[in-house]
Amino acid sequence: MHIGLIGLGRMGGNMRDRIRNAGHEVTGYDQNQEISDVEGVADLVAALPEAQRIVWVMVPAGEITDSVVTQVAAQMHSGDIIIDGGNSKFSDDTRRAADLAERGIGYVDAGVSGGVWGRENGYGLMVGGPDDTIATLMPIFDALRPEGPAEEGFVHAGPVGAGHYAKMVHNGIEYGVMQAYAEGYEILAARDDLIDDVGAIFTAWQRGTVVRSWLLELLVKALNEDPDLDEIRGFVADSGEGRWTVQEAVERAVPAPVISAALFARFDSRQEDSPAMKAVAALRQQFGGHATKAAADG
Amino acid sequence: MHIGLIGLGRMGGNMRDRIRNAGHEVTGYDQNQEISDVEGVADLVAALPEAQRIVWVMVPAGEITDSVVTQVAAQMHSGDIIIDGGNSKFSDDTRRAADLAERGIGYVDAGVSGGVWGRENGYGLMVGGPDDTIATLMPIFDALRPEGPAEEGFVHAGPVGAGHYAKMVHNGIEYGVMQAYAEGYEILAARDDLIDDVGAIFTAWQRGTVVRSWLLELLVKALNEDPDLDEIRGFVADSGEGRWTVQEAVERAVPAPVISAALFARFDSRQEDSPAMKAVAALRQQFGGHATKAAADG
Amino acid sequence: MHIGLIGLGRMGGNMRDRIRNAGHEVTGYDQNQEISDVEGVADLVAALPEAQRIVWVMVPAGEITDSVVTQVAAQMHSGDIIIDGGNSKFSDDTRRAADLAERGIGYVDAGVSGGVWGRENGYGLMVGGPDDTIATLMPIFDALRPEGPAEEGFVHAGPVGAGHYAKMVHNGIEYGVMQAYAEGYEILAARDDLIDDVGAIFTAWQRGTVVRSWLLELLVKALNEDPDLDEIRGFVADSGEGRWTVQEAVERAVPAPVISAALFARFDSRQEDSPAMKAVAALRQQFGGHATKAAADG
Amino acid sequence: MHIGLIGLGRMGGNMRDRIRNAGHEVTGYDQNQEISDVEGVADLVAALPEAQRIVWVMVPAGEITDSVVTQVAAQMHSGDIIIDGGNSKFSDDTRRAADLAERGIGYVDAGVSGGVWGRENGYGLMVGGPDDTIATLMPIFDALRPEGPAEEGFVHAGPVGAGHYAKMVHNGIEYGVMQAYAEGYEILAARDDLIDDVGAIFTAWQRGTVVRSWLLELLVKALNEDPDLDEIRGFVADSGEGRWTVQEAVERAVPAPVISAALFARFDSRQEDSPAMKAVAALRQQFGGHATKAAADG
Repeated sequence: MHIGLIGLGRMGGNMRDRIRNAGHEVTGYDQNQEISDVEGVADLVAALPEAQRIVWVMVPAGEITDSVVTQVAAQMHSGDIIIDGGNSKFSDDTRRAADLAERGIGYVDAGVSGGVWGRENGYGLMVGGPDDTIATLMPIFDALRPEGPAEEGFVHAGPVGAGHYAKMVHNGIEYGVMQAYAEGYEILAARDDLIDDVGAIFTAWQRGTVVRSWLLELLVKALNEDPDLDEIRGFVADSGEGRWTVQEAVERAVPAPVISAALFARFDSRQEDSPAMKAVAALRQQFGGHATKAAADG
Repeated sequence: MHIGLIGLGRMGGNMRDRIRNAGHEVTGYDQNQEISDVEGVADLVAALPEAQRIVWVMVPAGEITDSVVTQVAAQMHSGDIIIDGGNSKFSDDTRRAADLAERGIGYVDAGVSGGVWGRENGYGLMVGGPDDTIATLMPIFDALRPEGPAEEGFVHAGPVGAGHYAKMVHNGIEYGVMQAYAEGYEILAARDDLIDDVGAIFTAWQRGTVVRSWLLELLVKALNEDPDLDEIRGFVADSGEGRWTVQEAVERAVPAPVISAALFARFDSRQEDSPAMKAVAALRQQFGGHATKAAADG
Repeated sequence: MHIGLIGLGRMGGNMRDRIRNAGHEVTGYDQNQEISDVEGVADLVAALPEAQRIVWVMVPAGEITDSVVTQVAAQMHSGDIIIDGGNSKFSDDTRRAADLAERGIGYVDAGVSGGVWGRENGYGLMVGGPDDTIATLMPIFDALRPEGPAEEGFVHAGPVGAGHYAKMVHNGIEYGVMQAYAEGYEILAARDDLIDDVGAIFTAWQRGTVVRSWLLELLVKALNEDPDLDEIRGFVADSGEGRWTVQEAVERAVPAPVISAALFARFDSRQEDSPAMKAVAALRQQFGGHATKAAADG
Repeated sequence: MHIGLIGLGRMGGNMRDRIRNAGHEVTGYDQNQEISDVEGVADLVAALPEAQRIVWVMVPAGEITDSVVTQVAAQMHSGDIIIDGGNSKFSDDTRRAADLAERGIGYVDAGVSGGVWGRENGYGLMVGGPDDTIATLMPIFDALRPEGPAEEGFVHAGPVGAGHYAKMVHNGIEYGVMQAYAEGYEILAARDDLIDDVGAIFTAWQRGTVVRSWLLELLVKALNEDPDLDEIRGFVADSGEGRWTVQEAVERAVPAPVISAALFARFDSRQEDSPAMKAVAALRQQFGGHATKAAADG
């Protein structure tokens, strides 16, 4: 099979390698010409088999994806297929699929998990779209997914949007799981009078325990490299997916206290100073005459 | 009536004034001799009516209270009464009362709310102890509590410990209520593209709305003095009572998501950097190759 | 002044009374003909002064409001004004105002707080719209708002949408404040071995304490009527505004742990059984052989 | 080696098997004579090598453990060792170790994770105590821990108490991780209009994804057995360890929003009706005239 792949960053670049290693042909395009196989989107589409062009778009979510999809579609004809493998919002998929369907172009949304380890381990895939389009793409999905039973690393989650919806929830869970380990880390680290070596405890949780997981193994790796995490600041970005998970939970009246707490902890981590806590400090000063820290105290 | 009062800080000093204004006699002691009426605890007890000495202890919670109570009791005889009006843990009251009872000394725990405004407005009082001891002390409680129906500013909550228990829960609620306003403040302030003047909105909530309250009025006052809270840092201390409220809720299997969230927000506000968020940042770096902020970036 | 008012339920009916009591004329319409002054929307608009018709729409949020606004506008000409006093989402206001502006019809969004007590106490008002339109409507706002300084019960919060935005945040805060009291109530009630009478404690918090508020007074009223809340189930609906507050906080990266916890508690309260907790129970059974409750156990 | 083992339930019984399978001798005692090797505690101690008796106590936490430890110690002499492998609170360990030390009896606290799968997979072990005592016990620990590098399934976490402390935090993390998956499950299940088969999505997360873990595998197993979890109620017990984790976090001023949210969700799951939500419903009725559900409505 021969597909086009747009976006050759940390994710896309590794995916190109993995698909090629499986024996398929990939023409890749990236704004960075040093890693790009072609000069532009038009060249990329032109390089693909005329009968049915398949282009996997692997760029950051949001307006960029829309713009790239539009550019690609402009070069396509009826029967071609676009896969959005980025972290798009599931509701954007429905809109895009409808737009493309008017011109006979197929659309599949693919949630891709695994990070930089996917090249070696394979990527967990959650896809949404029509059965026949998915069937056409199965050789590529098989190339990307991990070794082992297909259903343990790939799922056709439902119609268009279902793939990104499943990925969104995956990431929401991921936020919660990471925060759970992180809180445990801090509680252990707070007791250096009792606990000899926090890293040794996480290390020992890798076998036999209830909390063993891949994320735990990564935390062990991080603690081996920097035992007290001295080299890193507690500043954590968030992509849209955690936010959408909470917003969707709210929309559906699903209680999501853990995922939202994990999200809010990230928001907190990025604030120089918290307007809310300024308000609380101001209140305490008003009723209790409690001393506050002046902004000038830094 | 003539009582002794130990601790003449922001709370105790004002209470002395209010009790005196009600026509009672107060002998006050404080480590700070400039505001103290006597030189020491022994002098204070000696200055009180021999028949029944009543001493109100108004010092910070914890070991200090125990030490002062012990000093006072050493000067007392059977039939005398000690009131602990500080923010002691309710379980400490039971122990203290039992110790003093062996010597015939009465003990009452009093939760006192109202902050620096109590001198003028009166103090909300929640007390615990035996009926007859409380009855003896009513003139003092009546002097301290606000004008109006007694039951709207004073409660005999139960046996020894019940006063501080009620005050503990009061403060737990206070944390939650303050945080609710504070989050609302931050959400409004985040939309300066839409909301002209956040302070004007809080000002307008003082009459007619569901959220009107004394704390709201204090926040209006604070925003009038410093509209963007530029002069204050979002650094918020916590006394023991919010912590005890959460620990007691956990002990009794009572869900307390709001009070605990308010408490944790205070903990957060005091951290230079969060060990938990370092762990989350480290994890993201491990699986995603996401850039982190180095500690050196400050 | 003479205005039209559509929707004469718990809120609208009382508002009609209050505006009339202030000396204005109100023509009211409601689907329920028994309380309606006219037979239909067309009759209502026809009954208003030809020069400038002003109609206050006071119906539940969502599609109903859009439909009523459309019906009213169909009867209007350039220079007329529609006020949406319901709990619409602020983003709907912008859309509606733009639609109406094409035909020269003015639009103001008004958040109205105070519940069934507003008739007597006045309503807290937060409005959004152009200065001149607001100026035109001031006599009505003055009739509705509480006695006292205007700025303590009324705010022109900003352009169209700002009124409902402020009301949305008001309700988000309200959720948090209510939940804080509620958690305190449950913690006190859990200790009937120590606390004689929970209602007496809330009663005593009405004067002098830091947590005194109008909501506290309402809780005292409720506990007087039903001391153990035996007659009421812990089942709590939510209108859209709490949800929008959380979704907006998430959109703006504002941590809102307390408001979201209060919202989730309401979601929880309405679940017969929680799918999430089924999953947790299933997990415990898998790893620990812990007994679970069969669904059949009821 | 030959040790005694008291408590042959789901954990102890399997541990006896695993230790025996490793070639050691185990004399087990349980109140249930059918599975017990001896008739009483005295018989058990008498059956052990006179030189140094080693008894592993594997009973539920709390008073029972204290009572059993006391019974065992009464039969012991200086140089013998007791291991508490149950879920005791870490602060109890310090007290017990001090009591036993007076008589020369060694004490080790062991946190044991792995549930019913430990017999086959081995148990994750976290132990606290003096180096030489731990060294003596290593053959038993090696028998119990999983195959693979010792440090990945066993840790000497620190002095007495450190083992149970590490296990406490392990369980706190476990609560958070389980709740994260559970919330994700509920969000997916709420969208049966989009998501074809929630179980298939969890199944597909087992390979390649960031959230893969042993708990995820168990959830897949549970969903295979009962795809909509129809046979199970959302009623979840909690042992002491989640509570202690939150209480300890509060004690140490460590924010623990996720672990506490997970704990509170369990508390919620066991309430027939929530006193807090009754209070919220009562408040809404008071200010809004909102209909409530009467308790009689069931």
